Amino acid sequence: MTEYQNASPAEVRALIRQEKITGNTSGMCAGYAQANLVVLPRDLAFDFLLFAQKNPYSCPLLEVCEGRFTTETADHADIARDLPRYRVYEYGEMTGEYLNVEDLWKNDFVSFLIGCSFSFEAELLEADIPVRQIEEGRNVPMYITNIPCRPAGAFHGNTVVSMRPMTPSQAIRASIVTSAMPRVHGKPLHLGDPAAIGIQDISKPDFGDAVTIRDGEIPVFWPCGVTPQAALMAAKPPFAITHAPGHMFITDVKNSALKY
Amino acid sequence: MTEYQNASPAEVRALIRQEKITGNTSGMCAGYAQANLVVLPRDLAFDFLLFAQKNPYSCPLLEVCEGRFTTETADHADIARDLPRYRVYEYGEMTGEYLNVEDLWKNDFVSFLIGCSFSFEAELLEADIPVRQIEEGRNVPMYITNIPCRPAGAFHGNTVVSMRPMTPSQAIRASIVTSAMPRVHGKPLHLGDPAAIGIQDISKPDFGDAVTIRDGEIPVFWPCGVTPQAALMAAKPPFAITHAPGHMFITDVKNSALKY
Repeated sequence: MTEYQNASPAEVRALIRQEKITGNTSGMCAGYAQANLVVLPRDLAFDFLLFAQKNPYSCPLLEVCEGRFTTETADHADIARDLPRYRVYEYGEMTGEYLNVEDLWKNDFVSFLIGCSFSFEAELLEADIPVRQIEEGRNVPMYITNIPCRPAGAFHGNTVVSMRPMTPSQAIRASIVTSAMPRVHGKPLHLGDPAAIGIQDISKPDFGDAVTIRDGEIPVFWPCGVTPQAALMAAKPPFAITHAPGHMFITDVKNSALKY
Repeated sequence: MTEYQNASPAEVRALIRQEKITGNTSGMCAGYAQANLVVLPRDLAFDFLLFAQKNPYSCPLLEVCEGRFTTETADHADIARDLPRYRVYEYGEMTGEYLNVEDLWKNDFVSFLIGCSFSFEAELLEADIPVRQIEEGRNVPMYITNIPCRPAGAFHGNTVVSMRPMTPSQAIRASIVTSAMPRVHGKPLHLGDPAAIGIQDISKPDFGDAVTIRDGEIPVFWPCGVTPQAALMAAKPPFAITHAPGHMFITDVKNSALKY
């Protein structure tokens, strides 16, 4: 049981801003959407926004902020202080991890808040569909596929997918449940044979942890928010800020509000 | 019955490019999506793309082209020649109508192809839901609401809606059918009382033609592609190209492919 499971997003963001919470946000504020963060200088923002438009299922935008403060997903949250941990990248290399990025902030920064599969996992559990990595206390397994993203400017790369094993009947229901949530990755990209999308060994994920696939289960693959992160690394921009893995922005948007 | 109803999109685009077709595209290439066009210089493209991201149901992007040629919605169609008629706007004023814009094209132009309600009307008819303005041979009635768009840069304005009258039972089914098509405006924005969204007189549309509302029918309102056109006019950019009303880009994308 997580300490802040029943806390409100505003309350947790305040504690994060005061640096009283600095750890990962997994399980906090149950029912509310959490978001990945990418911050770029404005001269790269058009290309990244275009990349998101061209790859909406792997890079679903919940909000794009031209200033530091959110208006749509939370009321006046501060992008530079309200996530527990940030990473700074220069020319594709990580150059530091920070509890806030206030001193690094520039007026021309554009922030992208990107939907996350935590939101649809809540709906899967609600529909009695198992989420194996939660059962096993691991990180979700993620794989680099052979499916190219549509490139935009310097941003390019193959689609990264997350995988959840389930029975065929659960896979059918999971497809219906998640198809209703296009702003948090939507329907599966593939199910069954991993080799069909270029995955050679399902027991060796490229990111995250391997999970058990039981007899009678098939792997089901969804587009993953690591895709835009990988495209960002491939583009090697002079400067970029992201959330640290697992240290997400907690929005005021209920997962259930992301249906349709 | 339209002359090119059963023609292929590639065939019709070739005739348009040869300027053998110069009229409106209504009813052509049945089953294929048609798109609204907005072309802007690159320095305004970020703000317009952000406007579309912030208002996805009134401004659903089917494709954004950085060059003149499409890659996603049609194979190598020429944006500068493959629509039957274009309008040029300077500082918000229309300064000319053209059969092609080849001579006006600049390398930094970005083209936005925006989904159109023609696509979901085909699905409504398929579901035996009447589309009154088609029955009455008129243009769809459109109204300026009191619902503000989320602004981006200079682009701003209120949401424009299209209206189709139907019975409550048809409205319920129409909501389900169109909710599955978010790339062509998606579910209704409102149904019933026009005053609730700032429409004073349903018999006097701001654009298009009035249609008959029969006893037992209620008006059902969808976000409309005129919204981004109106936001463009309000922004008064130094230079912009759009399609002429009704003279759309015919894509190779089937309407049925826009579901989910």
